Parts: sequence; structure tokens; C-alpha cells
Amino acid sequence: MAATAGEWLVHRLVDELIMVAVAPNNNHVVGVDLGGTKILAGVFRDPRDCIGKNKISTKPELGPKKVIERISRCVREAVEGCDLSLEQIKGIGIGAPGVVDAGMGRVVFAPNLGWRNIDLQHELESLLGRPVVIENDTNLCTLGVYQAELKNKPRHMLGVFLGTGIGGGLIIDGKLFSGFNHSAGEIGHMVIAAGGPKCGCGNRGCFEALVGRQSLFHRIRAKIKDGEKTLLTEMLGPHLADMRSGDLRKAIRKGDKLVQKVVEDAAEYTGIALANLINIFGPEIVVLGGGIIDALATEMMPIIEETARRYAMSGTDKGVRIISSELGDDAGITGAAVIASGQTL
Amino acid sequence: MAATAGEWLVHRLVDELIMVAVAPNNNHVVGVDLGGTKILAGVFRDPRDCIGKNKISTKPELGPKKVIERISRCVREAVEGCDLSLEQIKGIGIGAPGVVDAGMGRVVFAPNLGWRNIDLQHELESLLGRPVVIENDTNLCTLGVYQAELKNKPRHMLGVFLGTGIGGGLIIDGKLFSGFNHSAGEIGHMVIAAGGPKCGCGNRGCFEALVGRQSLFHRIRAKIKDGEKTLLTEMLGPHLADMRSGDLRKAIRKGDKLVQKVVEDAAEYTGIALANLINIFGPEIVVLGGGIIDALATEMMPIIEETARRYAMSGTDKGVRIISSELGDDAGITGAAVIASGQTL
Repeated sequence: MAATAGEWLVHRLVDELIMVAVAPNNNHVVGVDLGGTKILAGVFRDPRDCIGKNKISTKPELGPKKVIERISRCVREAVEGCDLSLEQIKGIGIGAPGVVDAGMGRVVFAPNLGWRNIDLQHELESLLGRPVVIENDTNLCTLGVYQAELKNKPRHMLGVFLGTGIGGGLIIDGKLFSGFNHSAGEIGHMVIAAGGPKCGCGNRGCFEALVGRQSLFHRIRAKIKDGEKTLLTEMLGPHLADMRSGDLRKAIRKGDKLVQKVVEDAAEYTGIALANLINIFGPEIVVLGGGIIDALATEMMPIIEETARRYAMSGTDKGVRIISSELGDDAGITGAAVIASGQTL
Repeated sequence: MAATAGEWLVHRLVDELIMVAVAPNNNHVVGVDLGGTKILAGVFRDPRDCIGKNKISTKPELGPKKVIERISRCVREAVEGCDLSLEQIKGIGIGAPGVVDAGMGRVVFAPNLGWRNIDLQHELESLLGRPVVIENDTNLCTLGVYQAELKNKPRHMLGVFLGTGIGGGLIIDGKLFSGFNHSAGEIGHMVIAAGGPKCGCGNRGCFEALVGRQSLFHRIRAKIKDGEKTLLTEMLGPHLADMRSGDLRKAIRKGDKLVQKVVEDAAEYTGIALANLINIFGPEIVVLGGGIIDALATEMMPIIEETARRYAMSGTDKGVRIISSELGDDAGITGAAVIASGQTL
């Protein structure tokens, strides 16, 4: 006997309710930022809504296999911390520090981890049983800022991230641009002072050798050796072990001229690097981030912007905004969540 | 009375024949390269088929109005030299040295001409009565090489042109990329030696201040002043007036160590600049051109390529070709012909 329209509707509604109750809610994603010292994982409902995070040390000295196990552990703990199970995770995005072949799922070269040609995507998929996508870390920071922080989406954006390493990312026509070898945006090894200080990459005068965290600490130590005075020795002891970017900020705010000079020089070099990038690439907006900017934006941003506009060729910086990101440490996991949810790439 | 189908067909064919006989064959285009010293115009059947050229001096000291009249004269003479009339020209493309707003048809800033905000497109259209499109000169050189010289079209290409000025162009996803302010590819004022020699733009250590023609001549004169010997003084007289890139090649081939050193240094700086650009942009191919490369490719290209690969970050230059263009002086007019025929942009 055929059901009436009313009976049919009731059956459909009951079916729908059963479906919702039984099916796992797998709209969550996990974004991971794999760094040389720490692994940070965040669970996201959408790229603007992180519902929980977990951080553990990387220990790259244990080798790639152990590090990938640590990433897996970090992700599991983050998911459990949100009272979710892995089955409820739609996908996992990971940013790795170095040249990444996203299509092949491989980390081609990551000097800070000592990795060459590591199949991060598939090894992690077999540990976690969920789809994994990988990208270069500062590409993901750029994407995170673009998707979660910028309201009016610019067509072309440049992200510049200053920390232990220096990296960048390019958004062209609203999409992450990675170039022929998936390596576009490797701005840290742009030479801006040929014949200048030695860089970890073997060259001299790279942006990273002038502005990266180690180069700032190195210059401060050299000045102390030359007999200059700084409050940092009182704050941290004579060997300045565990010196952090935040310590530089504290010292400057207490009137430390030595640290102020080192940070101002770094800001000026950053401005020159930005002018180069504006001349070459023509972005609509430049967003700076990373640990050094997170700690020292107030001190550095005015000098960076003034220098960039002074060095940029007339006409190239007109209307171009130069700002610092508010996402801080979360830029990388946010961008990783964006690719995990398949919104871009 | 209605015509039969046969009569109708005959009438149609006669009409078509009359149309072909009367209508001008306006499939030709003119490409113009506007430089600080000369204006070069070429008449093209297609971008690989230049049927005639004309060259006159620019005389920028006469001011923009007179220079635009000289461009008009140069185009008219080129067209007449091919036994064509202006009515047979579908369009005219022009490359100008500086920041160009192609959409508005304006030259925003061209330091070598002393121009700011000149309405080149519309003033030339009113003089010639034909459609005019304008672009940055080295963008057009890049486009010319891409369309007329490269057989397998790469997705991403970088053009680098070394002459009195240094400029570049980016092809992204097969299209000329001009960025937010139409200024992308302004690689000549990329700082690669902060605090280095003074540049015409007011900064120090720009690529152009290290490798541009004037900087090479300046360094040769400085070495002579310091008492070093060169064959150039025999070849050109003690004041080295009218020194050209070709003279440097002749001197090197006669064993002139001073000139060889200056040219080798320039090649090394060019290699560093290329490594920066490969790291940042990730092209599939880098093509070099311009007067310095046209004259000195044999001497410079091996050093440029070796240095670029040494400085490029590991993985970024893999499979990337670094070559010199064969188009020589014709790269600019070829690219101008491409935009005039509406093939790209």
C-alpha cells in the first residue's frame, strides 16, 4: 500500500535524524607546523576557529622516522584534547621548513631538520590513517594570513617571516604560487650584502645571515666581546644562554643601546629586502610575521616600512600596504588547516 | 522576382571578391622599442616575421612632445619602407623604459627619458590614427623571447636584460605578470651589495650599479686612473669616449686583463642576482639578453650560470635552464609586435 505524503515526509525526517546521529562529524581538520625545535598541531572547525592546540619538541637529532612518529603523537594528542577521534578528522595539513614537493608529498630539502627527500605525506598517512597534505612552512604562514586575517582579499600578496630561519610566500591571483621546483618564496637566501657575513647555507650576505635570529645573537655576543655593555648579561648571565627575541624587546624598553642598534640594523636590512621584493614581484600587500616580528614589531616595523619605501623604485610601492600579522605562532597551523580542508591548492 | 539558388551564390561570390579587393590587408603590426638613446620600429607580419625596420635617435632632451613626434615619424618611415600605408597596420605596440600603466596607456615614471605620467598611448594614437598599446620595455623583451624564441613554452619564465639600464620581466602561467602597480620585474634596483657603489636611483649597491653599462665603464676608468693598463686607451684614445660593450669584447679577445676582470666581476654579480631571482620566483627558464649580453655572452654566460647555481638554494635550480637570447636588439620590437597583434595581455 502506498504511503501518504505525510507518512513519507515523517519517514524521510527520521532517516535524516538517524544519519546525523550515526555519521561521524568529520568536518574538523588538523594543521601542523613542523619546526626545527617544536611541532605545533591545531584542531580547526574552520580556518578562523581553532578549538585546541598541542606542542611538543621536534628532536631532529633522532632522525626522520622518529620525528614523523612525534608528529603523529602530537596530532593524536591534539585531537584527543578536543574530545574528538581521528575518524572525525577530514584531513591533516603540515608545513615543513624547506623545499617541499607538495605533489609528491616529499620534503626535498630541509636543512634545519637535516632532511633530504623524505616521504613525509605517505609515512604520516600510514601512521594516522587520515589524508595528509604537505607544503613549505612559510608558504602556509602566508596562506594562513591571507585566508584568516585579511578581510579584502588582495590579488597579490607577499608574506615575510623572520625567525631562526627567514622564509616567505607569494600569493598570485589569490592562489599560493610555488613555481617550477615548488621553491618560490625562498627569500631568506636572497643576497643583499654580497661578501657580507657567512650564512648557514654556505654563501655570504644572505638576508637570513643579516636578520635571522642567530645572526642577531651572534652580533650581540661580538659586541660584548669588544667590550660593549648590555643589560642582557644581567638578565641572562654572562653566556647569554637561552637568549630569546622577547629578551631583546625587554632590553630595548629598559634603554639598552647595544641591543637597540642591532635590532635597528636588522630592521633596515629587512626594509632593503622588502624593497627588492616589491620591485621584483609587485605585491598589493606585504605581511610580516615570525618570532622576531611577534616580539619586536613595535621597534622594527616603522624602520622596516620607512626603509622599504625609500629603497623601492619610484611608483612600485604606491598604495602597497606593509603590515605585521596578528596571528603570531598560529599563522603556520592556520595555513595548514586551509590546505587540509582543501580550500586552496 | 526571387533569385534562384545559383544566381544568389554567384552574387555572394562577386560581393566577396569585391570586399577582398577593396579592403586593406591590415594584418600587419608595428612593434616599437623606445630607448633613452634610440627609437627602433619594426613592421611584422607575425611575431616571427619582421619585414622591415627603422631606427632614429630619441633626443629625450627635446621633451616628451617632440619625442612622441619622433616615435610617430619612426613608425611612418618603417611602414613606408615596407611599401605599406598606415591603414594597413592593425595596431602599434610600444615598449617604454620605466614604470608603465598599460591599462591607462601612461608612462608613470621613466628616469632615462625624464618622463613622469606621460599619456603616450593616446597622444600617439592621435598622431598616427591607429590603435596603440604600451608596456614596460623589458616586459616586452621577455614576451618577445617567450613567443618567438622558445619552442616548448615554459609555464614560468624570467627575462633579464643587461644594458645601460637593467630590467626584467616575469611570465607566470604563460602570461606576462605585471603586479599591483604594473611594475613587477624591476630587477635592476634589487640591492645585492648593501652599502656598495652609488646607483642612478639614489640607492647604493643595486644590481644596475654593479653591472649596468655605465658602472662597467666607470670601473674601467677608475682602474686606469689607478695606473692600470688597458688596450682600450689604444683603441679609443685616452678619454675612452664612445666606449661600447663590443669594445670590451675586442679588448678581452686581445688578452686585456683589466677589462677581463671587470667583465668577470659583472658576470659574478649577475649570477648572484639570478640566484636571488630563482630562489624568490622559481622560474623554469631564465633568458638573458640586452646589449651587454649580446656583445659578451661567450665571456659572461659560463660565469653567470656557474655562480647562479652555486648561490641558488639547493633544489631551487634543478632542471632550470639559463640561456642567452638570440633575438638581440629585436627582442623589444618582437614583444611589442606580440601585444600589438593582441596575442597576449
